[in-house]
Amino acid sequence: MTTPPSLAITLPPWIAEVVDWNRRLEGDEARMDLAIRLSKENVERGTGGPFGAVIVEHGTGRLVAVGVNSVVRLTNCTLHAEMVAFQFAQQRVGSFTLAGPGLAVHELATSCEPCAMCLGAILWSGVKRVVCGAARDDATRLNFEEGPVFDDSWRYLEERGITARRQVRRAEARAVLELYRGRGGAIYNG
Amino acid sequence: MTTPPSLAITLPPWIAEVVDWNRRLEGDEARMDLAIRLSKENVERGTGGPFGAVIVEHGTGRLVAVGVNSVVRLTNCTLHAEMVAFQFAQQRVGSFTLAGPGLAVHELATSCEPCAMCLGAILWSGVKRVVCGAARDDATRLNFEEGPVFDDSWRYLEERGITARRQVRRAEARAVLELYRGRGGAIYNG
Repeated sequence: MTTPPSLAITLPPWIAEVVDWNRRLEGDEARMDLAIRLSKENVERGTGGPFGAVIVEHGTGRLVAVGVNSVVRLTNCTLHAEMVAFQFAQQRVGSFTLAGPGLAVHELATSCEPCAMCLGAILWSGVKRVVCGAARDDATRLNFEEGPVFDDSWRYLEERGITARRQVRRAEARAVLELYRGRGGAIYNG
Repeated sequence: MTTPPSLAITLPPWIAEVVDWNRRLEGDEARMDLAIRLSKENVERGTGGPFGAVIVEHGTGRLVAVGVNSVVRLTNCTLHAEMVAFQFAQQRVGSFTLAGPGLAVHELATSCEPCAMCLGAILWSGVKRVVCGAARDDATRLNFEEGPVFDDSWRYLEERGITARRQVRRAEARAVLELYRGRGGAIYNG
């Protein structure tokens, strides 16, 4: 027996109902609202953990990709919302970095501060700005193991030209985490 | 235009020629030798960056999954060797964590110390031990941007029951990085 020849990364089918690909998302709050909406739908429709993310063009607000937590649905620990969004965004623009030649400046809005894996991936992804909703503490209160993220980790990104704005619509984002906890949602630690 | 409905994560076809799935890998050195072999084949066959990884059952040495860096080949910044190996291993055992109920203890051997993303993923993956070949400095010498990994990051893993042994067959692992540099291989930073 060998490993399967191919894995498929998919978004849940309800994404097509929820996401208007033609809408421009102007301002951090509009971008965060969509990230939080995705996190909430993911809980309510039972397709994964309480996390959503969007990638937009920084200037125009054009929506490039979305992601929702898909760890349990796809049996794959790497599929946090941010990671899903990065992969679909890169596929769409045809570059392994969203800062590739000739591309617009891209940014990430994520419904919760990134875990260590996703923070590391931000650096590889090519996004130049990150907007976060809920705080790390809001996720660890649910016993999610967010990993080694320190103040120095954020500083490291900043020194490399990646800026962050945190706790945008924090209360709304946290409410989705509490909704998930209330429903007894799976805590998919390693 | 919307994002594509599905992404495929594949291993390069030469994996079938190189990997003997029935061989037990006993001891750290045998596991590292395969990780380094994979990194070298990936360079020589032109299918990606100079990094390879294997997941084995800690006790028996049974090979569960392999990974090679696939960032450029699959236009996807998340596909470091370790990340590819985790995903195929989880698919194979049918659990989003390799520490799931009833499973053997799993460990990772990786041809180079993990970047920040992969170190964070180790925590989610469920492996309980990590063996590394080349050092972080060996990768940064090629200008790979390895991200915010600190001594405290390793300590964080240790405190959660994940042990690491680093610089196993370092010279051999580093030689593959130098081979890649000599060939002018792509440095796929963000």
